[in-house]
Amino acid sequence: MATAQEARLLSRQNKLSNTAGIAPGYLQANLLVLPATYATDFHDLCLRNPVPCPLLGMSANPGDTATMRPPCIRSADFDIRTDFPKYRVYAGGHFIESRQDLLDVWTDDHVAFLIGCSFSFEDALTAAGLPPRHQKTGTLVAMYRSNIPLLPAGIFTGGNCIVSMRPYHPEDIERVRNITREYRLTHGEPVAWGWEGAKQLGIGDVTKPDFGEPQEFQEGEVPVFWACGVTPQMAVEAAGEKIEGLVFAHEPGHMLVTDWTAEELQGAK
Amino acid sequence: MATAQEARLLSRQNKLSNTAGIAPGYLQANLLVLPATYATDFHDLCLRNPVPCPLLGMSANPGDTATMRPPCIRSADFDIRTDFPKYRVYAGGHFIESRQDLLDVWTDDHVAFLIGCSFSFEDALTAAGLPPRHQKTGTLVAMYRSNIPLLPAGIFTGGNCIVSMRPYHPEDIERVRNITREYRLTHGEPVAWGWEGAKQLGIGDVTKPDFGEPQEFQEGEVPVFWACGVTPQMAVEAAGEKIEGLVFAHEPGHMLVTDWTAEELQGAK
Repeated sequence: MATAQEARLLSRQNKLSNTAGIAPGYLQANLLVLPATYATDFHDLCLRNPVPCPLLGMSANPGDTATMRPPCIRSADFDIRTDFPKYRVYAGGHFIESRQDLLDVWTDDHVAFLIGCSFSFEDALTAAGLPPRHQKTGTLVAMYRSNIPLLPAGIFTGGNCIVSMRPYHPEDIERVRNITREYRLTHGEPVAWGWEGAKQLGIGDVTKPDFGEPQEFQEGEVPVFWACGVTPQMAVEAAGEKIEGLVFAHEPGHMLVTDWTAEELQGAK
Repeated sequence: MATAQEARLLSRQNKLSNTAGIAPGYLQANLLVLPATYATDFHDLCLRNPVPCPLLGMSANPGDTATMRPPCIRSADFDIRTDFPKYRVYAGGHFIESRQDLLDVWTDDHVAFLIGCSFSFEDALTAAGLPPRHQKTGTLVAMYRSNIPLLPAGIFTGGNCIVSMRPYHPEDIERVRNITREYRLTHGEPVAWGWEGAKQLGIGDVTKPDFGEPQEFQEGEVPVFWACGVTPQMAVEAAGEKIEGLVFAHEPGHMLVTDWTAEELQGAK
């Protein structure tokens, strides 16, 4: 348990990793940071793919590390280069390293985008007696590459949707769908469910996630899949050499806790 | 050539069919009409799939045949039951008939949705020296069922995206993408292009469209595909018996001409 600001300060001090269940009630965010020349195309990509890439906020100006618009961070003591628990760096479409902060790689030309995270609706699921398995086991949510294509925008003309997975009993799926539907800024209702749904997404083996950790299935449970904010990293991979300069992202499962609550955001809850 | 109101009155009198190239500069709209109980789910479907289903407007109230919100129709002399050139009727997920109007099937419980149409950016393509082939040949635009899945919303848990196709030379595609990108309320930039793009969409034979008419290819031309507002009809087909009562739609290619121009709509042009 922590407030949003406490969670960000713990992240800055590298005392937090997996943010699932941290600071209940506050929306959590994925990150993508690009050189400014690609910001318009990335903004378009979000507008055209709002389920995997729901835009919560972006840098007020290129190079600005403290102010996001709209103001999903209210504290004056904020630094986008340190307040995620962990970061990833891409060059030429390739992941090159994980880092604790972006202090010595960030430039005045970088623009940050915050994308809603499905951790944001997990408190509501727990309150309804439907807690996500990875919160009970203290593991990272399982994430997979799916075959749902991202619809192109500018230089971003490839890449598929990443999905997160939580196991549920088939008889609970309609409740799970109804609870998460209202969280439109943090991926909303599932994109597929059941073993047939896994097959439709092209996921052959749920025990082998592409990001995060495998999840235990109890007798009779089936996978339920939501779009995931790691998806922009797939668009960056697909863009490859078309992007000059370094691109930054969060480490999957290691999110920013924002000051927005689900309740106050019309359309987000 | 006609003004928007003239085009609607000609449609009401059944003197208009294919609306491509009619009333240049005005946004054109696809139609879906549902019993009110399904309106929220369909609205969600549009928000989650804004490229195939960009929402231009909807009935101000169930049963209202004259007033759309936002006000994309400004004339007091408007009737959604007559002012499209041609309509389709669905029952239990099946297409059952084409009609010239909806006067004796519309009920006080029906809610109409207007979805942006790609005819809206064809004037801009023509002005740039890139006129769509079907306008030059006086044919209906070619439309195909693709393998891009609609992301589920409520009772709408199936169906794929329909795409419209216009042939262009490969060297013109970046200009075509740039011109259409700004028309975000009428499908925006293409979703795929080239023979490889056709294969990615699962379209094996472009000479056999699922709706509209085949288009001539000149030497060296390749297909360019945009999302299409016939897509909601695929969601209705997939929902099948889950929908009780009649559903109405427009006949593909036979659109409503609205009073909105591309220029006045921020984000639509």
